Formats: sequence, C-alpha cells, structure tokens
Amino acid sequence: MLEKMSRLYAPTLKEDPTEADLASHKLLLRAGMIRKTASGLYSYLPLAWRSLEKIETIVREEMDSHGGQEVLLPVLTPAELWRESGRWDVYGPELMRVQDRHEREFALGPTHEETMTDLVNHELKSYKQLPQNLYQIQQKFRDELRPRFGLMRGREFIMKDAYSFDADEAGLKATYDQMYDAYDRIFKRCGLHCVPVAADSGQIGGSSSIEFMALAEYGEAAIVHCDQCGYAADEEAATAVIAVADGPATPDGEMVELDTPGAHTIEEVAALLGVDRSATRKSIALVNGVGEPVVAIVPGDHELNDVKASHAFGDYRLMTDEELESLGLVKGCIGPVGLPEGVLCVCDISLQQSLSWLVGANLPEKHLAGACPGRDFTPDEWLDLASAKAGDRCPECGAPLKEARGIEVGQIFQLGDKYSRALHATFLDQDGKERFFQMGCYGIGVTRTLAAVVEQSHDEAGIVWPVPVAPFEVEVLPLDVSDDLVWPAAQRLADELAALGVQTLLDDRKERAGVKFNDADLLGLPYQVVLGKRGVKNGTVELKDRADGERTDVPLEDVASQVAGLVDARRM
Amino acid sequence: MLEKMSRLYAPTLKEDPTEADLASHKLLLRAGMIRKTASGLYSYLPLAWRSLEKIETIVREEMDSHGGQEVLLPVLTPAELWRESGRWDVYGPELMRVQDRHEREFALGPTHEETMTDLVNHELKSYKQLPQNLYQIQQKFRDELRPRFGLMRGREFIMKDAYSFDADEAGLKATYDQMYDAYDRIFKRCGLHCVPVAADSGQIGGSSSIEFMALAEYGEAAIVHCDQCGYAADEEAATAVIAVADGPATPDGEMVELDTPGAHTIEEVAALLGVDRSATRKSIALVNGVGEPVVAIVPGDHELNDVKASHAFGDYRLMTDEELESLGLVKGCIGPVGLPEGVLCVCDISLQQSLSWLVGANLPEKHLAGACPGRDFTPDEWLDLASAKAGDRCPECGAPLKEARGIEVGQIFQLGDKYSRALHATFLDQDGKERFFQMGCYGIGVTRTLAAVVEQSHDEAGIVWPVPVAPFEVEVLPLDVSDDLVWPAAQRLADELAALGVQTLLDDRKERAGVKFNDADLLGLPYQVVLGKRGVKNGTVELKDRADGERTDVPLEDVASQVAGLVDARRM
Repeated sequence: MLEKMSRLYAPTLKEDPTEADLASHKLLLRAGMIRKTASGLYSYLPLAWRSLEKIETIVREEMDSHGGQEVLLPVLTPAELWRESGRWDVYGPELMRVQDRHEREFALGPTHEETMTDLVNHELKSYKQLPQNLYQIQQKFRDELRPRFGLMRGREFIMKDAYSFDADEAGLKATYDQMYDAYDRIFKRCGLHCVPVAADSGQIGGSSSIEFMALAEYGEAAIVHCDQCGYAADEEAATAVIAVADGPATPDGEMVELDTPGAHTIEEVAALLGVDRSATRKSIALVNGVGEPVVAIVPGDHELNDVKASHAFGDYRLMTDEELESLGLVKGCIGPVGLPEGVLCVCDISLQQSLSWLVGANLPEKHLAGACPGRDFTPDEWLDLASAKAGDRCPECGAPLKEARGIEVGQIFQLGDKYSRALHATFLDQDGKERFFQMGCYGIGVTRTLAAVVEQSHDEAGIVWPVPVAPFEVEVLPLDVSDDLVWPAAQRLADELAALGVQTLLDDRKERAGVKFNDADLLGLPYQVVLGKRGVKNGTVELKDRADGERTDVPLEDVASQVAGLVDARRM
Repeated sequence: MLEKMSRLYAPTLKEDPTEADLASHKLLLRAGMIRKTASGLYSYLPLAWRSLEKIETIVREEMDSHGGQEVLLPVLTPAELWRESGRWDVYGPELMRVQDRHEREFALGPTHEETMTDLVNHELKSYKQLPQNLYQIQQKFRDELRPRFGLMRGREFIMKDAYSFDADEAGLKATYDQMYDAYDRIFKRCGLHCVPVAADSGQIGGSSSIEFMALAEYGEAAIVHCDQCGYAADEEAATAVIAVADGPATPDGEMVELDTPGAHTIEEVAALLGVDRSATRKSIALVNGVGEPVVAIVPGDHELNDVKASHAFGDYRLMTDEELESLGLVKGCIGPVGLPEGVLCVCDISLQQSLSWLVGANLPEKHLAGACPGRDFTPDEWLDLASAKAGDRCPECGAPLKEARGIEVGQIFQLGDKYSRALHATFLDQDGKERFFQMGCYGIGVTRTLAAVVEQSHDEAGIVWPVPVAPFEVEVLPLDVSDDLVWPAAQRLADELAALGVQTLLDDRKERAGVKFNDADLLGLPYQVVLGKRGVKNGTVELKDRADGERTDVPLEDVASQVAGLVDARRM
C-alpha cells in the first residue's frame, strides 16, 4: 500500500493551536489528523481514519475470538425503552434528545443497554441459546457540559459496546473474565500501557466493574495502586486503609475547648496547633438528596470523594452560607459535637481508629481537642467517604499505595439483572422456570484509545506511533524530488516497500528538507527512510527509527527488506 | 472462518411477518438478519452485518483505487452551515433537528455537502492541492413521512458519501467519470444488475446527475430506457420525445365548441369523441411557488411530472375548488383558451408539434376542437413537464422507449459551485485568482444495496446470496448430529473448509432434517454440503448450488477443495 504526500489530505499546522492544551489534542490537530467541527465534535481525516480502522480491526479480532458477535443498532433509541429502565430522567442533559416529525421522542444512543436488551427479548427464549455476547462499533453521543481535551472528552465519539446475556451469575462471571482477557489483549496490541483498576459502576449500574486505564501524566482520572500486590483502583472506587492520627492529647483525655483565632482551614488549624493534618478532622456541611442537612467528616488530610458521597447522600449539594447560619453552624469551625437536632453526622470509616478527635467547636474561632465519638457525640453512620491517596495503605496487602493518573479507555461491568428486570427480559431455564438474563456490558472508547496512544507516545517533535496503529508504517523521504538520481530511487524504494506489504507514505512534495523532516517527525510514522543526493550516489540511505531517534546508514538495496522485517516484528 | 449455528445469533421466523410486503423485507426479517427497533429503524444482526461489511469493503476498495480517501465527519452537523447553504429551511421535516444543552441547533446529517465543504475550506488553499475526493461510510438520517419496505426507505441507514473538490469543470468531469467507473464496478462486484440512468438532481442540486438503478420488479423508481442505444433515465429526468396527435379535424381548421356532457376526464372525453387519448390535452390548474395561478397542459395520455413541475413552478400545489370557482375555471373542462387575466398558461414542449388541440372550453360540459396555439391562445411558456413512459421516443436515437422499475442504490452529482459559492469556499488558481471549488458528490446506499441484492436474488424458499456479499460462503449440514459417523465427518469437513479460507457455517443443531433444509434455503448461502448417514458411510456427500438448485454427489474427501474452487471463482 503506497500513498503520496502530495495527494494525501493531511493539512499540517506549523504552530500549536491555541485551543489545545493536551499533547494528544495538539499533535492530532497539528499532524492534520483531526479537525473541530464544533465544540466537542471532531472530523477524522484520512490519517486518523487509518489508525482508527486499525484499532477497530484489533477490537473486532479480539471480540470475535472471545465469543463476541458483531451487530449494529440504530443511533436513534426510543424514549419508551429509556423510560422503562428509568434512565430517561436520571441521565440528565448529557442524553441528547430528539423528536421525530410525529413528536415521538428518541435519545441519540450514548450506550445501548436498553435497546440491546429489547432486541434479544422474546427471541432468546431458552437457556440453550445462552450465552450470547453482541457488540457494535458506532458513533455515540454524550452532551458534555464542558467538552475538552480533543478526542478525550468529546460529545460524539466512536465506541465499541458489547452486551452479554447469560443464564446465571457463574455464566456472567465467565463471560466477564473472557472480556477482561480480550480487553487486556486489545490494549496491548494497540501499544498502550494499561492497568485494570477496580471502578465504580456509576450511571451504568451493576455490581462489579473494572476500568482499563492508560497511564498518562495528564490523564483525567486519578488512580491509586500498590506495587506490592498489584492492587489498583480509581480514586472513586479505592477502599484504602487510611492511617488516622489522634488529635493533641488532653488532660485525662477530656474534651477541651481551644482558641483558634484566624484558623479556618485544616492547614491553618494544623499549623497553629503544631499537629499533622492527619490529626485533624475535616467537616463538610451539605444537604443530601432528600433535603436533610448532613455534616460529613473525613480525615483532615483527605478529601470527601464526590462519587462516594453521591452513593451515601444521593444527589447532594454543599450548604449555602445562609443555611449554615440558620442551623447555627459556624463556617470554618464546624464539628460533630453539639450538632443541632436533625443534622445528621456521617463519618468516614477510617476515623473509627481514633478516640481523640480535633474538630471544629461550632463556635467562632474555637476548636475542640479530645472529642471522643460515642462519648462526646454520636455519629449517625460510619461510611467510606474519603478519596484514597498516595501513602494510604493497600486494602489487600497493607503496603503503601501510590498515585498515578490515567485515561479510561475501556470499562467492563457485571450488570446482573438490573436491565433485564426493568425491561422484563426473561428466558426459560433448565427447569422451565422464567428467569431474568444475567447481563454484562463492555465498552471501549475507540477514538479515545487513539488519543491515549498519542498521549503515551509522543515527544517534543511530534507523535511516535506504535507500529500496530500507525497510519502508515514507513515514510520515504527523498530530500530533492527534482534530482534525477534521488527521485527515481525513492519511487523504486516506495514501490518495493509496498510490494513487501509495508504501508508506505512517500513524501513527493517539492519542499525544503527541513520542512519534510519536521513533518515526518510530527506525523511520527515508526520508520523514516531518508534519501539524500550523496547517499544515493554511494548506494546508501538513512534509516531512522522514530521511537529512539537512532539513524543508521543502510545499503539502498537492503533497506526495503530490512524495514519489512522490522515492521513485521512489531505488528502484533 | 467457521461459525456454528447453535451459537450464531440469527433467530429465524417460520411465518412471513405481516408488517412486510417486499421480498427483501420479508426475507431479511425471516432469516434473522434484521429486526425493527421502531418505525424505519432497523438493527442489523450478525448475518446482515457480515454482508454489510463485505459491501463496505468493496466500496472502500473501489473508492480508494479511484482516487478517494476515507474520513469520518460528525453525525451532528451545525445549523449555521445549513443556514449558509439555505437548506435549513428548504429541507423540511425530513431533516432531523436537535438542540444541545446550550440550545445550539444541529441536524443529524442526511448528507454532508455543508460540513465537508466547511472542513476543507481555508485548508485546501491552492490549485496544487486539487483534486481531492473525500468519502465516509456512516449512519445517516432522514425522517421519512412514511418509512417502508424495510431497509429500502428507512429513517436511519448506512450510506457511503463522497465529496470531490476540483479546480475547474474539466477536473470535475474527470473525477465524476472516475466515480462512474467506481460505481459500475462496486455494484457489479456486489452481484447487482444495475443500470446507470440520467437523473434529476433534486434537493442536492447541481447540473448533472446519474442514478445507479438496481432493476427490480417492485422497485420504487420508474425508469425509461432504450434497447437500441442504451439511453436510460428515471421518469423524472427523461426528456422523451412524445408523439402528440391532433384533435378531431374541424371545418377549415377553425376552433369549434363541442358539447361533451358528462365527460370530465381524459378517458371520458376520448371515448365520447372517439379519439385516442394522445389527441386530447390534459389541463392542470395549480398555484405556483410565488402564489400565481397557472394552467399547465400536457398530452392527454401523459402525466404532469411532479419533479419537472417543481422545477417549473417551485413549491407548487393544486388549486382548490374554491380557487377554481373564484377564477371562473370549470373543473373537468379547463383549457388554455380565454383564460382570465393573470392566469399563466404553460404547455409541455411536445405539444408544439400540434396546431389543432382538443381542450376544455372553460364552460360547463363543453370542449373546444381545433384550438390553435398562437391563434386562439398564447402559451406563456413551453417547458418539459410530462413524465416519459413506454412508447415515447428515445431522445438519443428515436427508438421506442421501454419502462422498467428500479431501486436507486447510488447516485453521482456534478454540483459545480453551488455549495462552495454559498459557503465562500475558495482556492487560488494558477494565476493567483480566487475561485470557487468545482464540487461533485457521490452517494451509495449501503444498507439499501443489501436489500436490493436480496430483492434481485431470491426465490420461493429464501435468499440466494451472490458469493461476494454472502454472510458465509458455504453451509455444512450434518442431518443427524448425534450420529457418530456423520457428526465427526461434518466437523472435520467444516474445519477443512475453514482452513482453505472458505467462510463456513456449520449447522450443529439437534433439529430435524426438514428444519435444517428450510433454514439453509432461507439463509441462502451459495453452497450447501449435506451429510447424510448413508452417504457418509459410502464416503459421499451432497453438494447443492443454492442458485440453480442443482445437487451433486461428491466424494467426501474432495468436497472441501471443490467448494473452495467454486467459491474462489465467484468471489470477485
């Protein structure tokens, strides 16, 4: 396969686009691979499309060899089905809704649990027909409040989504494990360094979920992981063991009121009293989903985790200053002792370790030391509320956890019967008894995977494509296309490479060598073959490995087979 | 490639579904290939998806080898662009519109002239970068008033759409011809019998257009074609030469008033006066797009063509009885003579042949014979208004035209500068002068092509797949899977076929032979290999060619290589 640069539609940009912060966003724009149509909406130009097709092929091969069957469902999904599952209302403005000419409502599918369940319902009738695992690759829609980072968080994106139907939980577990293996292979084959992490099930629901995170310095997601035993979880799902220190000692362990003038934050209180932040307690006043006032307390050196808080408090929000005042809570000095009637006190589970808390006194410029749960106040509930972070202990082995950032490229869920029950989707088991399908669902962000690859694999000069997902495998760079030695040699070499099955891009443009070198590094094909006048005269060309930058002089007559061999070894 | 029936998600139906009239619709439903999600919205199950992928591959190969480059644009297309081209208002309710959370408007792309032009604008800057031909394969949306015939007229469908940008008309013509060749090859490779016909450009616009029609008895489109010279056009675009007869002779050729009591239709007038319908004139009273009253006149044996009328009269409608009355026009007896001031008279171009017309008299129960244009009335315009039909003369060679019906599977357009001018999309030519792109656009209905293949290729028992687009190439049918001779032989054969690269479906179900035979004919794979007990004992199997129904006994040991050879010869 041979393509010529003069013909290829890949308008490169010399300057970094101002709209882009993230490396993948910048480089995909600069290399002429993507263009923005509107906020969060991108067009994929030929180079990006070639890479996307390779990712899709890898996904298809692994899905097919792990029990999947490909289908394609409509983008327009009927509102009735979303209403049956209850998600029409839950989903909020992220779900793009459209009315047809007869005013019937549809959602532009962000995910297809409902329509897929509806598809098999009444057709998968017997346990004998199970398991089934149906997948599709399709443009999906999510009307993000703040689309950003290019392909990372767009409003329209390509996703592979799969849905499995099993007869029982053991079957679901087996299918889920199969998908785990498939995902592991898919991301490896794409050249991504991914870690599977325990995840929260979020809007999709279900009992168990794993995210595949491509590690990246500027990834959106925070992960904690344990080098000792391999445990990894996203911040939202991690149930770390948090080391909690007691507050300052008090005479006989009694509760003592302390003056803390001007100390309204954890940092200020810790500094004033000369204790570590872990010896303090952070109290957050909020209103839970059913309108009740709550004071949530976490270790002073940890944050209240939004997702954990949502599980605990529903659709909660922070209290306004007016609400604080009307309840007699003093901003900056809130604490669990002497809370007004009707204000719930919910404490992070880790705080059970300590019987001597340093907390706000609910009085201006005052804190309490030695406050003892059970004696001085009574928590209504102990829950997992705090975000895990580096230094916390691994829940599996107790070693200290480390922090990393990642890009979520895939997620697998055990849904159980959440959707089959809501949509009354049943089959007959061996005893002729009607049962709900045990479902799983499995997503891969195809366009996000592309961006993640670039995020993990680039340098100052541009993209560094792993061979399996590179738009082309080699670029042939004749430095002077008007030279009657160099140009014919370049053409012959390009033909030879193509004939050996190497996907070849020939830079046939009448541009200066500098422009060609820069563009070649920017596009980042795995190998470059540079043909200069002197070299060709002596029968040699320069072979550059884009990944390590190494340049080797290679005899012109050998270079095609050498490149073919190198590429083939890295194709997977 | 080997798949087992027990695992394949292809729920077949024994009965014809009541919702379906057309063979392709019925058979795709019955063979478990498609399912309806909602009116005009279909899910493609694994078998259909396999065929669609093959069609897509053929499309890609031919597009790539004819100058195309694949891209993918968002489904959501910004309203601003549709407004710039003027189509936001023109398109009407077929354009599905959606608002995002910020109340910005988008259309779900039914076609992408605007977004594609916007994409290249300011990036294709010089004639040196031209031509470019960008295509995509994508789900498209058109909110049909009456979705029907399954995949033929859906509201969401897969389309390949390409857009070319050339520097001048000669370039556009060359690209257009290239696409013509590509389309010709694509449909041939899909096993479709297609004819290219001259077409109207419709809503897309532009100067020249050809439709690729798959001939089919129940096709939606009417075509006229000439066996003599190969001319073919759809009814809307055909400029046939219509033979027009004079009305009854009158003394000295004077205009004469005739009593025609009770004769209000062409048929009644012709019968009453004993003349052929071609000797009569059909007058249609309508209101044109700018509100003017018009009497349009066509030969009595022809129809006013809706598309031609739209070109002539804009967004026209028929007059109401009240309007007729208020203008003094008599229903059933309308004619061109003595029309009230302000009523335009527009006549079909073919009527210029005759100077003696039989027309309504604009008086109750009266007609006029011998009415002579230029003497007794003066047409405001002569235009091509009538639908061509069988028996009319070929505009190229004069031979009688024939009628046929077809399914439009592809269309190519020379758009000229319609969209580039509207969107101010320009490049600099050789003289440094700013010019509008000369554009072409080229569509293929991918899902409709699938349906057209089935429509052309089926029999009483089911589908008859052409090899290149068959979901699998051969089905292996062990009649008794519990037999310890038959079942192992079937498994070995299936493996052998798969190893030879034949896409093989093994019916491993414990079903009666009759059920298996019926399902095999319904699914319609090109070849069936039947393994019966007696045959296998004697080392023979039965090879059935689905297309001609021929059955041959073949030695078990030879059948795999024989099938591989047959399939390979027909793969294209």
